[in-house]
Amino acid sequence: MSVDQVPDQMRASVLTGVKELAVELVPTPPVADDEVLVEVAAVGVCGSDTHYFRHGRIGDFVVTGPLILGHELSGRIVAVGADVPDARIGERVAVEPQKNCRRCRECRAGHYNLCPNMEFFATPPIDGAFAQYCVIRTEFAHALPDSISDEAAALLEPLSVAITTMRKAGVTPGSSILIAGAGPIGIICAQTARAFGAAEIIVTDLVPERRERALSFGATKVIDPAAVDIAAAGLDVHAFVDASGSARAVFDGIRAVRPAGTAVLVGLGNPEMTLPIEHIQNLEITVTGIFRYTDTWPAAIHLVASGQVDLDALVTGRFDLEHAAEALEADLDPASLKAVVYPR
Amino acid sequence: MSVDQVPDQMRASVLTGVKELAVELVPTPPVADDEVLVEVAAVGVCGSDTHYFRHGRIGDFVVTGPLILGHELSGRIVAVGADVPDARIGERVAVEPQKNCRRCRECRAGHYNLCPNMEFFATPPIDGAFAQYCVIRTEFAHALPDSISDEAAALLEPLSVAITTMRKAGVTPGSSILIAGAGPIGIICAQTARAFGAAEIIVTDLVPERRERALSFGATKVIDPAAVDIAAAGLDVHAFVDASGSARAVFDGIRAVRPAGTAVLVGLGNPEMTLPIEHIQNLEITVTGIFRYTDTWPAAIHLVASGQVDLDALVTGRFDLEHAAEALEADLDPASLKAVVYPR
Amino acid sequence: MSVDQVPDQMRASVLTGVKELAVELVPTPPVADDEVLVEVAAVGVCGSDTHYFRHGRIGDFVVTGPLILGHELSGRIVAVGADVPDARIGERVAVEPQKNCRRCRECRAGHYNLCPNMEFFATPPIDGAFAQYCVIRTEFAHALPDSISDEAAALLEPLSVAITTMRKAGVTPGSSILIAGAGPIGIICAQTARAFGAAEIIVTDLVPERRERALSFGATKVIDPAAVDIAAAGLDVHAFVDASGSARAVFDGIRAVRPAGTAVLVGLGNPEMTLPIEHIQNLEITVTGIFRYTDTWPAAIHLVASGQVDLDALVTGRFDLEHAAEALEADLDPASLKAVVYPR
Amino acid sequence: MSVDQVPDQMRASVLTGVKELAVELVPTPPVADDEVLVEVAAVGVCGSDTHYFRHGRIGDFVVTGPLILGHELSGRIVAVGADVPDARIGERVAVEPQKNCRRCRECRAGHYNLCPNMEFFATPPIDGAFAQYCVIRTEFAHALPDSISDEAAALLEPLSVAITTMRKAGVTPGSSILIAGAGPIGIICAQTARAFGAAEIIVTDLVPERRERALSFGATKVIDPAAVDIAAAGLDVHAFVDASGSARAVFDGIRAVRPAGTAVLVGLGNPEMTLPIEHIQNLEITVTGIFRYTDTWPAAIHLVASGQVDLDALVTGRFDLEHAAEALEADLDPASLKAVVYPR
Repeated sequence: MSVDQVPDQMRASVLTGVKELAVELVPTPPVADDEVLVEVAAVGVCGSDTHYFRHGRIGDFVVTGPLILGHELSGRIVAVGADVPDARIGERVAVEPQKNCRRCRECRAGHYNLCPNMEFFATPPIDGAFAQYCVIRTEFAHALPDSISDEAAALLEPLSVAITTMRKAGVTPGSSILIAGAGPIGIICAQTARAFGAAEIIVTDLVPERRERALSFGATKVIDPAAVDIAAAGLDVHAFVDASGSARAVFDGIRAVRPAGTAVLVGLGNPEMTLPIEHIQNLEITVTGIFRYTDTWPAAIHLVASGQVDLDALVTGRFDLEHAAEALEADLDPASLKAVVYPR
Repeated sequence: MSVDQVPDQMRASVLTGVKELAVELVPTPPVADDEVLVEVAAVGVCGSDTHYFRHGRIGDFVVTGPLILGHELSGRIVAVGADVPDARIGERVAVEPQKNCRRCRECRAGHYNLCPNMEFFATPPIDGAFAQYCVIRTEFAHALPDSISDEAAALLEPLSVAITTMRKAGVTPGSSILIAGAGPIGIICAQTARAFGAAEIIVTDLVPERRERALSFGATKVIDPAAVDIAAAGLDVHAFVDASGSARAVFDGIRAVRPAGTAVLVGLGNPEMTLPIEHIQNLEITVTGIFRYTDTWPAAIHLVASGQVDLDALVTGRFDLEHAAEALEADLDPASLKAVVYPR
Repeated sequence: MSVDQVPDQMRASVLTGVKELAVELVPTPPVADDEVLVEVAAVGVCGSDTHYFRHGRIGDFVVTGPLILGHELSGRIVAVGADVPDARIGERVAVEPQKNCRRCRECRAGHYNLCPNMEFFATPPIDGAFAQYCVIRTEFAHALPDSISDEAAALLEPLSVAITTMRKAGVTPGSSILIAGAGPIGIICAQTARAFGAAEIIVTDLVPERRERALSFGATKVIDPAAVDIAAAGLDVHAFVDASGSARAVFDGIRAVRPAGTAVLVGLGNPEMTLPIEHIQNLEITVTGIFRYTDTWPAAIHLVASGQVDLDALVTGRFDLEHAAEALEADLDPASLKAVVYPR
Repeated sequence: MSVDQVPDQMRASVLTGVKELAVELVPTPPVADDEVLVEVAAVGVCGSDTHYFRHGRIGDFVVTGPLILGHELSGRIVAVGADVPDARIGERVAVEPQKNCRRCRECRAGHYNLCPNMEFFATPPIDGAFAQYCVIRTEFAHALPDSISDEAAALLEPLSVAITTMRKAGVTPGSSILIAGAGPIGIICAQTARAFGAAEIIVTDLVPERRERALSFGATKVIDPAAVDIAAAGLDVHAFVDASGSARAVFDGIRAVRPAGTAVLVGLGNPEMTLPIEHIQNLEITVTGIFRYTDTWPAAIHLVASGQVDLDALVTGRFDLEHAAEALEADLDPASLKAVVYPR
């Protein structure tokens, strides 16, 4: 359809208060010249969505008005702005859910993920994708091959987190990596580490079922950190990735890193943590974190299309828009890995 | 002289117990084929020397027998091993005081400073340089131009620490850098940052006299961290270097770093510290430490010979071997910056 | 003045044919919301300006209509677009003369200099700065301290070329560098190499006077390549920079690079050259070129303001707009280094 | 066996003149303290072996006395030097066939492959592995899992070349790469590119059968460079790898690289080649070569053991020591890919 034909209103699941979610008719977002309108097919539920749902805030980001959640999504382009070729209409796409300012120091330097003027989906006051439609700049609507399902396409977003992590961790063929936490991010990191060529992929988790799951998703070894002293186990890994947010896991994981190795803190836990500074100094370990991603969708699409990463197998729950609240609470079931909402 | 003519014994200041230092006749160390014998001219006193003197240990390194301290040194080659050209005899040299194994994984990878088999001067049980002579491999006896004094040549060692720090911090022309602590390492870091091209060199220290001193050694601005909230002052620096070992300084300094910036922890303080993890993650800051150095003496010699770094001005006390204990306690005077021992 | 008060027309020196230059009244360029209008103070003459003047083209870039030359410039902001604070009016600025698309793959990756949609000053059909006014995006109008003259500010552009070169060459304190050619770029590279800490700066040029000049601008040694075989002289440099465009200089210069060293080809000469491939392979030398710059003005301003690079001394000719043709032909005098045009 | 029990003599295929090869009894090489004696199981034939066989020299390396060829090898440790644990006796190993000096500037910097004092197998006057035994330092005798055959273990050497190439080319998941030449190195590079995550692997070769072969070893697309103008085909690849040694392929391949991309010249052809300098400059392309390898065997072993690279399938001819000459001439058959000699 042309931009003129876009319906004025659309259905959306709107967060109106803590744990208050309602399907409402809201204005369809306007399409700027360099944007496309995407009919949303599938939206993965992220821990941050659940956190906003339950607490109304994450750190300094506070929900002060109605907010549409959801930032892991795929769909189909149904209209395009004036600067976008009509030929894009009909394309199946995965959405990179960020809108950076393009002009600031960080954008000019190529790390647009760190743009201080960023408008990111489902981060107050910017709406997300639990809705019939959303808009995104054309360059961030990434074309999909038929072989990738709608669900998998939505989950290219957490895969992008994992790709960024592996890049920061410097994983290359033959690397050894320790991953703390076998939740969704830990599991995707394990798969992605394998795709980056890691020879040794050790995953720790306190829960036996989660350790089992890690083994089926690329881990070459799993360890129960309650039973083994990770720091003293002689793991000697090139890289440690925390996907647990646990202070204990971070402290011990860093101590398992070899000289000149790297630790990447992905899990969100405490805003402050105690680190083994002497170990970091004596072994010249590099510690860093990641914040979203730049230029990951093409790689992510390749990893999934080539079968190196299996995202479909992560989906443990499917919900329509009316049941978005259930999707947001799916994590209460320990067997749940990833819930997906289908707004259509 | 030829190796045969080397005297069997030499005078040395030997640490025999906590705060017990005695000048003794000890065997002159044998010269291996790839080594040179250096008649020691000047030895700088490092905080680690003082720490062994006072406490008999640093972390896991414990003084269990007589130990010669001192690892910042210059001298003259007086004899050479079989594989070293006689022409080196007579050369004034600065000593890079490490002996790595050359074969392990770390040595092969080029970070010989991280060699687990390292024999480092004045680290128990390896003797140091408070003595008439010491031996070092020929490649680590760095030839000196006449323009560099014996004292300055000894202090190329802490300058090497500063050079390593600036490399890790990624300082290049135009960079901004925050340095916590205006002790010897902080002061040398400030000078070195200037030589690496830093445009803005902010030094913090609680002591007014030390802040004044920093201004005379390259700082473009000094701040009293008791009066200003470093983390909230909008410093937005490319790099933070801790040369204080203070947990507070480290925490706040990291929070002063801009997106994608770097923090290098040089100061030795607590083996564990609490870091601002959320800031590190959200701004993708890289935190690391340094452990000694690789391939720094040539650069250090250039910086001093060209006048970009002034090491002579750092010397605030001069002592002979008999007064080494006083040199080791010179830091009790807050006006002291660097004590030097002259074994000849 | 406000944008409304900008005069409709301005005086400009317009290239209307090969070697045909006329001062004409032309429309003042419109100021977009994110742009500023700069009253031009000084414009350096670059070899590319002279080439367009003489030949009407550079490679695939052909002058097909009237063109204003000049892309090295400084001036004062006299009006601002809607999105720019009025406070910028009155600022003295140096202009980074590029306008990238901000959205393409290259822009997103941080190398906006490689943007295929670039509009660059004085590159047909984009006008340059031999005029009373020009417009530039606010982020590319770099504020100047009083200590930098208008001429020096204009020459921050070729200094930016040199800074990019040193970054690519990996010059850090203690490096050795060989620079072929003692023209304007070679001379600025020599100064910049010194500011980046190079210990050894060897400049080659066939002309004795130019070699002399190099010595006064930072070279530590000069060589006549007609008298010495550069490739066989055992120079063993970390980096080679070609600022000559000479095939011979490039071939021999690369052979003077040490193992794992770098060669950066800056000089424009032949679109094709024969390189010593066996040497490049056996010593794993990296060869690359540079194309303009990203994020160099802040560093350039620091280098000039701190006195590490002297751009004023490069100016050998001063011309008003009516004598721009003479400025463009100033290079015919071998003693000329840099001509500057003053449109006011 | 103990070092004392090593037989004094062993059978070896010795090159005694151009195309003159004879099986002789020669002294078994002595085992230094840090070395192991390897009973050779399989030796791959490299183009350099064939070149010495046919021409008696490669560039400046001239065969002036009897020489044992062969540097791609596997075997079993049968005796160890004094510093090596007896437990290594019996280990199946792949040999990294280099002996660097460990002390020079290049060794200290971690690029021991560039050591000027290197003693490399089968490079005159250093003997290689067409023999019953050879010695290698213990750290360069890499333990093998049972799953890797003797032949595949020998071919870890060319795989190491490919790994080095991919590292230099910066290939990561999602990369696109163009490889010129579908000979042994091109084929192994294609497989290795896939293992490094390349999404697009384009191989060019003039011979249809070789293009077909490339498709079965990882190429996603093959092109006949006689039929398609590679430089103008819009390939826009991240990296170009030359494995052909053809000047035409190199010139066009570099022109197929995208802005800020990389070209790695692996193929040995002419010591000098003409490159598209303007393209290299305007697109800031990095051109480099590779010379052997550092720290590749662990990664290589992982890639083969995990099935990501299939080296067994490369073997097209098997020969005993008496037929080494035939092995060296196997390349005359265009269907030949890799000949292997079995000295036992």
